[in-house]
Amino acid sequence: MIVNDVEVVDVTDPADPRLDDFRDLNSVDRRPDLPSGKGLVIAEGVLVVQRMLASRFVPRALLGTDRRLTELGADLDGIGAPFYRASPEVMAEVVGFHLNRGVLASASRAPDLTVPAVLDRAHTVAVLEGVNDHENLGSVFRNAAGLGVDGVIFGSGCADPLYRRAVRVSMGHALLVPFAKAENWPGDLELLRDNGFRILAMTPDPTAQTLAQAMTGLADQRLAILVGAEGPGLKEHTMRASDVRVRIPMSRGTDSLNVATAAALAFYERDRLAR
Amino acid sequence: MIVNDVEVVDVTDPADPRLDDFRDLNSVDRRPDLPSGKGLVIAEGVLVVQRMLASRFVPRALLGTDRRLTELGADLDGIGAPFYRASPEVMAEVVGFHLNRGVLASASRAPDLTVPAVLDRAHTVAVLEGVNDHENLGSVFRNAAGLGVDGVIFGSGCADPLYRRAVRVSMGHALLVPFAKAENWPGDLELLRDNGFRILAMTPDPTAQTLAQAMTGLADQRLAILVGAEGPGLKEHTMRASDVRVRIPMSRGTDSLNVATAAALAFYERDRLAR
Repeated sequence: MIVNDVEVVDVTDPADPRLDDFRDLNSVDRRPDLPSGKGLVIAEGVLVVQRMLASRFVPRALLGTDRRLTELGADLDGIGAPFYRASPEVMAEVVGFHLNRGVLASASRAPDLTVPAVLDRAHTVAVLEGVNDHENLGSVFRNAAGLGVDGVIFGSGCADPLYRRAVRVSMGHALLVPFAKAENWPGDLELLRDNGFRILAMTPDPTAQTLAQAMTGLADQRLAILVGAEGPGLKEHTMRASDVRVRIPMSRGTDSLNVATAAALAFYERDRLAR
Repeated sequence: MIVNDVEVVDVTDPADPRLDDFRDLNSVDRRPDLPSGKGLVIAEGVLVVQRMLASRFVPRALLGTDRRLTELGADLDGIGAPFYRASPEVMAEVVGFHLNRGVLASASRAPDLTVPAVLDRAHTVAVLEGVNDHENLGSVFRNAAGLGVDGVIFGSGCADPLYRRAVRVSMGHALLVPFAKAENWPGDLELLRDNGFRILAMTPDPTAQTLAQAMTGLADQRLAILVGAEGPGLKEHTMRASDVRVRIPMSRGTDSLNVATAAALAFYERDRLAR
């Protein structure tokens, strides 16, 4: 059946192999979003599916309720992937738990972008080291998208931004904000410098410049904001490869903020001064 | 046995009733941190236990490994509560899961503070409405403590800040940053106004003033920052009871940020202009 230019296929058997992209979403070893396995990208919910449709990740299949099909409506025009329409109960059987977002889309991983491709036309990039928590990673993407950051570069020790939870927490922005993995770390910071980026490394060190001090007057300057994991922070080797160390002014007796929150404050300060 | 002025009691039987404050920490109905049950406050890990010791919540008992006892050391001097020393295995049996922070403290709930008590001597307060997620609530306290906010006022629909997860995510700052629940909501905003607070209501509305516009020139002015839940935001009724609507400048095509992140940006802007 074709609805609104989309191939809609009703499915009532949870064992139907056409739904295998969505099977056992929470399984430790069989989940479809493991790079070592199927390596699929999974979008959940109307908003995130819409963002996948606007991204470089091309859908293979969708699984959802009739209600979500209606909500997506014309967004699905010409997508070239089937929409498997099922009841919430059948969906729960397939994915392994009750999914209240009501719609899923799967896509193959798009080819990795290179660091130069991400830097191209970017005015501000975030550079992450050791951010190995999917939730924090997703939050960094959400904050980057909301606060004017054009791309994300991964140094060593970062988690997979296309893992289902990262995509979900990012509100789909992990699919839209371009990212690339540095091949040499921290050597590739030279690539940023060659492209005219000034490299700011975030640290809790109270002797570092504040964000406002370090960014004032640089609205027209390309900027890279380096953030390390909560706890260990950036490695000293990485700090040394940066241009300036910057800190968030913090109250006495407090320690670091969550890594995605710290990044958001730097993005905000950058955006604030660029307006 | 007395070690460093602390009563240390070795426990090897997980069923020992003296450990009941820490039993079944994750149980839906028996967990000790439910206000409807024992109503205890639970601190986990050396850092959070230290913050409890510095707070108005007086410890009843501690349970931990010998290693954590050593780490806490003189911080425990004169606390007047026993330290139950146990192996990680016994601790896991008691709490119901493996706890890698290695130490717990329990305290009774201290009497609630009143809104006027929280406002007293505060220069900046956060006011929350509908923040019903413990993790977000904990993050708001962590961000408040780090970014110079002196107190938190709860409007309607907020979760319990003394729930174990909230305390943990707050890094213990839920025990240190004073908070109170408004008895009349949003009527109690008048109490803030009577005390000279200017009331800023956060909104995604693109016609609202930016944080920087609304806060510039107000460094010496008492300020209340109102934040609503992600999604619905503040109720219109609450907005109307505020003095000015403020927004975070956001990129096109993005929606709201996480509520604790949005609050952090407002706290940061406030602190930035007050320095």
